[in-house]
Amino acid sequence: MISFFDDRQLAHAPLQELHNGGWENYQETAARATDISARLTGMRPSRDFGSDPILAVHSADYIDFLSTAFEQWRDAGRSGDAIGYTFPVVGRRPLNLTRIDARLGAYSFDAATPIASHSWDAAYWSAQTALSALDHVVKNAAPSAFALCRPPGHHAGADYMGGYCYLNNAAIAARQAHKAGLGPVAILDIDYHHGNGTQDIFYDDPEIFFASIHADPVSDYPFYWGHQDETGEGDGIGANCNIPLPRGTDYTQYQRALATALEAITKWGAKFLILSFGADTYAGDPISEFRMQTGDFPRMAQQISALSLPTVILMEGGYAVDALGENVSAFLSGFDHGI
Amino acid sequence: MISFFDDRQLAHAPLQELHNGGWENYQETAARATDISARLTGMRPSRDFGSDPILAVHSADYIDFLSTAFEQWRDAGRSGDAIGYTFPVVGRRPLNLTRIDARLGAYSFDAATPIASHSWDAAYWSAQTALSALDHVVKNAAPSAFALCRPPGHHAGADYMGGYCYLNNAAIAARQAHKAGLGPVAILDIDYHHGNGTQDIFYDDPEIFFASIHADPVSDYPFYWGHQDETGEGDGIGANCNIPLPRGTDYTQYQRALATALEAITKWGAKFLILSFGADTYAGDPISEFRMQTGDFPRMAQQISALSLPTVILMEGGYAVDALGENVSAFLSGFDHGI
Repeated sequence: MISFFDDRQLAHAPLQELHNGGWENYQETAARATDISARLTGMRPSRDFGSDPILAVHSADYIDFLSTAFEQWRDAGRSGDAIGYTFPVVGRRPLNLTRIDARLGAYSFDAATPIASHSWDAAYWSAQTALSALDHVVKNAAPSAFALCRPPGHHAGADYMGGYCYLNNAAIAARQAHKAGLGPVAILDIDYHHGNGTQDIFYDDPEIFFASIHADPVSDYPFYWGHQDETGEGDGIGANCNIPLPRGTDYTQYQRALATALEAITKWGAKFLILSFGADTYAGDPISEFRMQTGDFPRMAQQISALSLPTVILMEGGYAVDALGENVSAFLSGFDHGI
Repeated sequence: MISFFDDRQLAHAPLQELHNGGWENYQETAARATDISARLTGMRPSRDFGSDPILAVHSADYIDFLSTAFEQWRDAGRSGDAIGYTFPVVGRRPLNLTRIDARLGAYSFDAATPIASHSWDAAYWSAQTALSALDHVVKNAAPSAFALCRPPGHHAGADYMGGYCYLNNAAIAARQAHKAGLGPVAILDIDYHHGNGTQDIFYDDPEIFFASIHADPVSDYPFYWGHQDETGEGDGIGANCNIPLPRGTDYTQYQRALATALEAITKWGAKFLILSFGADTYAGDPISEFRMQTGDFPRMAQQISALSLPTVILMEGGYAVDALGENVSAFLSGFDHGI
């Protein structure tokens, strides 16, 4: 499988995150990407498609914030990584906020997604990596390509970060594919966690279908989104499909949910697939509670590739670093076999 | 001045708060209350008016959360104080959330308001202290009484905590006064920080007027509320008056803002006043940036007492602990002189 990556994605390195009442080491490490890339063949450098595809998804004020926040943090005399501590829970309205702490809270939904010195650069190149994989599939009429996105993207909304995510790579690729006339476009999110940012971006959009299989948000992050009754709003009603599963889910249960999601995508008439892939459904993942084994990943991939849709596969989560490269290459091998 | 307090308000003692990117010692200490009470004469123990006045302001699910959160935190195997790390920024809808971390985020707007072992008990008695002062003023036709509320209340909304606040003592007293037919009731908030919780509780309520003088939220917590153009909504339009002032404001500037607020309260026809008093406008306050001197507090009080309205004075913020008792007693002395 042809894969894309840019070394600038490695420079993003926050030190810690707030979790369960205290600081923990930041789990979304550069070692994740190097462990995956060491296992991949057919790696190519990402191309630069500029800011327009990013601005087709994210608001200009959010991009201005993201690209300047660390500098503003340092200008405010702070050391360490930029992190918010207060958040406008009761809805938001346009405000001309200048203080970095106010902006951090306004543009994020957790205290677990710090902005470090190279975060913007890494997020930018992670999005370009997604666009490069899309470009490859389109230009070469390839059945699939893999974007080693890092930082991941699916928790980021049009104007907020959270859950290790800054730019929504899947949304950026999906909107670009739609604009290029490749649709109907569907996004399938098989990360352990609900892709709340992706859902939010397309929640009232009838043109891009979003399906997600994930841990029930009653027990798992991001808690406030990913419930089964979230089916879209306005013109987007019916174009959103959440399948929450309980902790402890193994592949036998998972493949039934996957069949349901794939059936919904087929029924919707998708002609192009963006796949948000997280390897954190793995039994050994340190922050997740599903029970997928390494050998389950190729079968999962085969089930998806049986749709026979051109597919851009994007990396989302997965935190069992030592097994990550093996799990990702196992997944991609199943995809290769399926075509 | 007759003052009310209950020793159970001292047992609330979170260790730290997230602020400007790192943990700091919790500023809202029990020493604040003991320093104030040491300076007061006429102290009386608070009476218990039960939960009904609290439930007239706060939602039952929020009270259930507050009163059980610490136990649930410990049951989840956590040590230390209960604190959220993720927050539903994009609006909320009723969700049956069970995980303590999800509930902490859903019911708060910052990572700076932990729930410790005795927080609920202290918050309950802080509210009873406010109700006791109200009861005293009503029963004795007294011109004023002081409630040494701690924890403070003005950042707490109907269903959220934040900014050291759990129950909104001012809102609870104001609604109780309104129910007792003492209205029209006005609340004047002269803490350094905007009373966003109080504003939110009465934002669409035409029956209770809210005026606040505070540091401009463009530069100061709570950032997202307290802007001048927030004048109420629905039936409450016109019953909300924010007067944000720049950092560095001294008493000369402050008294003009106070005159404007008092004029609005008079024009509204108030017959009863709830006063949210913060001593953090003091020049020596460690987390605030106004320049009031100790000698300015009695003058401020005289200006307010010239309204000749029965007044319940509630303690909100003030973090220069060594000067706190002196500043509070100076303020209250000015009130005594004005009657």
